[in-house]
Amino acid sequence: MPQYNPPLRDIQFVIHELLDAGKEFSKLPAYQDVDKDTMNQIIEEAGKFASEIAFPLNQVGDQEGCTRHDDGSVTTPSGFKQAYEQYVAGGWPALSCDPEYGGQGLPQLLNTVLYETLNSANQSWTMYPGLSHGAYECLHAHGTDDQKKTYLEKLVSGQWTGTMCLTEPHCGTDLGLLKTKAEPQADGTYAITGTKIFISSGDHDLSENIVHLVLARLPDSPIGSKGISLFAVPKFQIGSDGSVGKPNALSCGSLEHKMGIHGNATCVMNFDGAIGTLVGEPHKGLNAMFVMMNAARLGVGMQSLGLTEVAYQNSVAYAKERLQMRSLTGAKAPEKAADPIIVHPDVRRMLLTQRAYAEAGRAFSYWVALMIDIELNHPDESVRKETGEMVALLTPIIKAFLTDNAFVATNEGMQVFGGHGYIAEWGMEQYVRDARINMIYEGTNTIQSLDLLGRKVLGDMGKKLTKFGKIIEKFIEDEGVRKEMQEFIDPLSDIAVKVEKLTKEIGMKAMMNHEEVGAAAVPYLRVVGHLIYSYLFARMAKIALTNKSSNDPFYQAKLATARFYFDKLLPETAMLIRQARAGSKSLMAMPAEFF
Amino acid sequence: MPQYNPPLRDIQFVIHELLDAGKEFSKLPAYQDVDKDTMNQIIEEAGKFASEIAFPLNQVGDQEGCTRHDDGSVTTPSGFKQAYEQYVAGGWPALSCDPEYGGQGLPQLLNTVLYETLNSANQSWTMYPGLSHGAYECLHAHGTDDQKKTYLEKLVSGQWTGTMCLTEPHCGTDLGLLKTKAEPQADGTYAITGTKIFISSGDHDLSENIVHLVLARLPDSPIGSKGISLFAVPKFQIGSDGSVGKPNALSCGSLEHKMGIHGNATCVMNFDGAIGTLVGEPHKGLNAMFVMMNAARLGVGMQSLGLTEVAYQNSVAYAKERLQMRSLTGAKAPEKAADPIIVHPDVRRMLLTQRAYAEAGRAFSYWVALMIDIELNHPDESVRKETGEMVALLTPIIKAFLTDNAFVATNEGMQVFGGHGYIAEWGMEQYVRDARINMIYEGTNTIQSLDLLGRKVLGDMGKKLTKFGKIIEKFIEDEGVRKEMQEFIDPLSDIAVKVEKLTKEIGMKAMMNHEEVGAAAVPYLRVVGHLIYSYLFARMAKIALTNKSSNDPFYQAKLATARFYFDKLLPETAMLIRQARAGSKSLMAMPAEFF
Repeated sequence: MPQYNPPLRDIQFVIHELLDAGKEFSKLPAYQDVDKDTMNQIIEEAGKFASEIAFPLNQVGDQEGCTRHDDGSVTTPSGFKQAYEQYVAGGWPALSCDPEYGGQGLPQLLNTVLYETLNSANQSWTMYPGLSHGAYECLHAHGTDDQKKTYLEKLVSGQWTGTMCLTEPHCGTDLGLLKTKAEPQADGTYAITGTKIFISSGDHDLSENIVHLVLARLPDSPIGSKGISLFAVPKFQIGSDGSVGKPNALSCGSLEHKMGIHGNATCVMNFDGAIGTLVGEPHKGLNAMFVMMNAARLGVGMQSLGLTEVAYQNSVAYAKERLQMRSLTGAKAPEKAADPIIVHPDVRRMLLTQRAYAEAGRAFSYWVALMIDIELNHPDESVRKETGEMVALLTPIIKAFLTDNAFVATNEGMQVFGGHGYIAEWGMEQYVRDARINMIYEGTNTIQSLDLLGRKVLGDMGKKLTKFGKIIEKFIEDEGVRKEMQEFIDPLSDIAVKVEKLTKEIGMKAMMNHEEVGAAAVPYLRVVGHLIYSYLFARMAKIALTNKSSNDPFYQAKLATARFYFDKLLPETAMLIRQARAGSKSLMAMPAEFF
Repeated sequence: MPQYNPPLRDIQFVIHELLDAGKEFSKLPAYQDVDKDTMNQIIEEAGKFASEIAFPLNQVGDQEGCTRHDDGSVTTPSGFKQAYEQYVAGGWPALSCDPEYGGQGLPQLLNTVLYETLNSANQSWTMYPGLSHGAYECLHAHGTDDQKKTYLEKLVSGQWTGTMCLTEPHCGTDLGLLKTKAEPQADGTYAITGTKIFISSGDHDLSENIVHLVLARLPDSPIGSKGISLFAVPKFQIGSDGSVGKPNALSCGSLEHKMGIHGNATCVMNFDGAIGTLVGEPHKGLNAMFVMMNAARLGVGMQSLGLTEVAYQNSVAYAKERLQMRSLTGAKAPEKAADPIIVHPDVRRMLLTQRAYAEAGRAFSYWVALMIDIELNHPDESVRKETGEMVALLTPIIKAFLTDNAFVATNEGMQVFGGHGYIAEWGMEQYVRDARINMIYEGTNTIQSLDLLGRKVLGDMGKKLTKFGKIIEKFIEDEGVRKEMQEFIDPLSDIAVKVEKLTKEIGMKAMMNHEEVGAAAVPYLRVVGHLIYSYLFARMAKIALTNKSSNDPFYQAKLATARFYFDKLLPETAMLIRQARAGSKSLMAMPAEFF
């Protein structure tokens, strides 16, 4: 049976020691009261809810899956509803929401911590409140006053939940092809008709109503992605007093049978003239939806961080207990029949890979979450704008880099278990199956890499990237003189220079041939990801070195993990840079019919 | 619904054009009649059986799984038994078996082709005849005359099947720890008592008897792996006339719930004083079992080659049909709503990765299969010995390199499908789940890499590797002067030199510190794998260049794939060499209790 212990010390290290979040919050009027004690209390409670309530349902959810009944209703696995009730009773949905609608008004950073722990515990279950929070953010940013009045309090309390309905059978990435129609009604509402697929949390028994945010076309809409509008379409119609009325003309047509995340209801949703209201402006639905999609992309990163952490914990526990073979340098546990497998170098490689990706992924995603708090709350508009640009730059990297790494990490975790890793009861293969979807949904990782390289980097001639690079340059200048930091600063400078050169080279080639962007994007994103992880490991190593005299194993382990990262994981960039530079020629040479 | 078309042209290319197997067979008395027509006929018939009989049961097997009934009996998924009957009726189990026992006496190479196609079609089903063939090989090599008389004809005909029973709950890799006991009986038989786990095809309804090859300890056995003996233990006791008698004291205690290969019955097998006979010498069971394990390791390579090929075929078909976005260089199918996704560079990267791994994996494994035919049949003993050494050197690479690559390839295939790849009905996620076990069983890939570097390379001071290197050196010398081969010979020479240097460096370090072997082994195996693939792609490119004037798309595609390989996949060695050279320090630094 798997286990999960919220990594409180690691979380607190990032928040207090690496990011000094309390100091940052002191500059944000909305969060001036958010001190260290408050944060620690929430972190502990979040970990408690995750490990005690959500975690015990993870394997149950995988085994039972969801059920669609003859009347079209959907029920979630045993215990999911009760856990959600406790989540609502604890006020968790409200954590980072606007106090105007009943929210607790706490930072995004703390919500991010909450989601890391929830996803370690149970990704499928966490997708219900997760998508709901995305719907809250979208309506909060783009809803009309009426919509806000109707929906926000209910979403904040958790009484209602939300979904996002984008994909159709013939279009996922290319939303411009979508066909769902929205017919204006005399009363100002719209009748929505069409089929949506892959709708996570599309129907379930957790909440008394579900608001679907649906992309559809108005009758006079332009062709392509500029003719798409967004609508709020409730499962049950809503009275003027906010009461839940009769069913809307929509239903779950079927549940998908999937590789993983069995506990989440992935629905085909049929809209047959369902009544909804327009969110934001006509034909600008994608803009409004992007608020939700960006939140969702960070959310997917959190799913993968959570899985990385829990896979790591379980494989470490197994590697300390499982006895198999002797160490190549002589017995380490001579009193036992064999040594615990943690003595073997390659088992350690698998464990440290997971550990390094968990530590760097946490540092990276919490940092971006703090940036979002600054973006949304800093009194200085220019700071808000600049920070927002950084968030935009980094979002696709969070999504793609963390999810690719989590697939590596969960697979390493499973491999540590040998044959037992392949057996369901040990729980490790579920982490691999669950982690696999994260590389696909909310924009495939290829799409993320095109967003990064094409739009975010080359789209502004490298301006945002250069600004980001200055943060790293400053650190290199500040720390480069310290001898004990040399082992971290040298490879960091090296990869920083390489990213700059690579970016310029691709930019030049892309001007001649647009395919070069598509050919380089995937390895390019990973190279930039490694630049960020190098920077963060160097910063964490600095803190560990500062605390060296404490003899606290925590800091010694931090240093050891950083050294492992630079030794064994950063070298991936040697491959990636070659792949990116190899360009598009060998990809495009073969005529399609020869495949 | 997935599809599978046996890649006859590709198979024939490797056998006739790359390996010129007919010429090799003409030197082997046993196979002098095996000409091109005979081979092609068998290849075609194998492909037909695989695609028409085994393939349609692949998804059924995944969905239904196997069932253990209250009486302990096990039934396979719908259709498995009938398919097996047809397999037997077609004489397929006998293909490469000894004519003395009813075999067709055909080369191992053709059996390897058969298994590639069967595994593309249905890995779970193929494991029943596959393990049975391994049991045949083990008894053929090490059985007593009595055992041969009792078992071989029945295994060759397929009337009976076989298994290998090694793993116990507390030991997999470290078989020295095993506890199953063998008590000598007055009549010369042994009573076997113990529990074996992860027994593939452990019980089922396909054959009238099952012979289990079981590792167990005699009462006076030395501790560790030198005290293990091998026993043949039939499911039903066998009369002196060969008839099937009453049940032996063994049974399937339960079936494992696994990530994949659901159609194969993975059993916990309980032996409660089951009667068996000794195979080979007392305490030398591991030697005898290694015959079966080596065959099984090549077999696992074939499983992964099969999955790579079928994943490739399906993702190509999808990429040609699925319309999504426009090419970055302008619409390629302006008459359609969007371009087929095969126009996008990164989709092509995913397709070509699968294709390159399928082509090189096939070339590599067929080459080794041909070597086995030479090892077993060449009239010159020194040729047999030398070839056997090459097979020993290459076996762990076949197992680990092909299975790691197949996990990459099936994942790329799934990714091409986007969200649909995650849905069971499309079949792609099953390939990923099935492919995952191949990295674990028959010795994890870490064990393979230790076998390669520790035993096969450093164990004889690099002698076998140097001999193998001479084959490549000769090719480089012969072809290095041809200008049109330069683009392939240059990177091949480069990686050959690097492998030599890396081997020496690790060898030196290993003398000081044995952990260096464990730290370098995994990346080292992949580097050597890439050396082999570079060599084979260069050879295939040479043939394609020779046939350039034919304008046959087959050769053009071969060249394009080779170029892609050198451009995009070989650069992995830049990472691997750095990882291997980084050594053991950062792996071993952290005390176990800090994890």
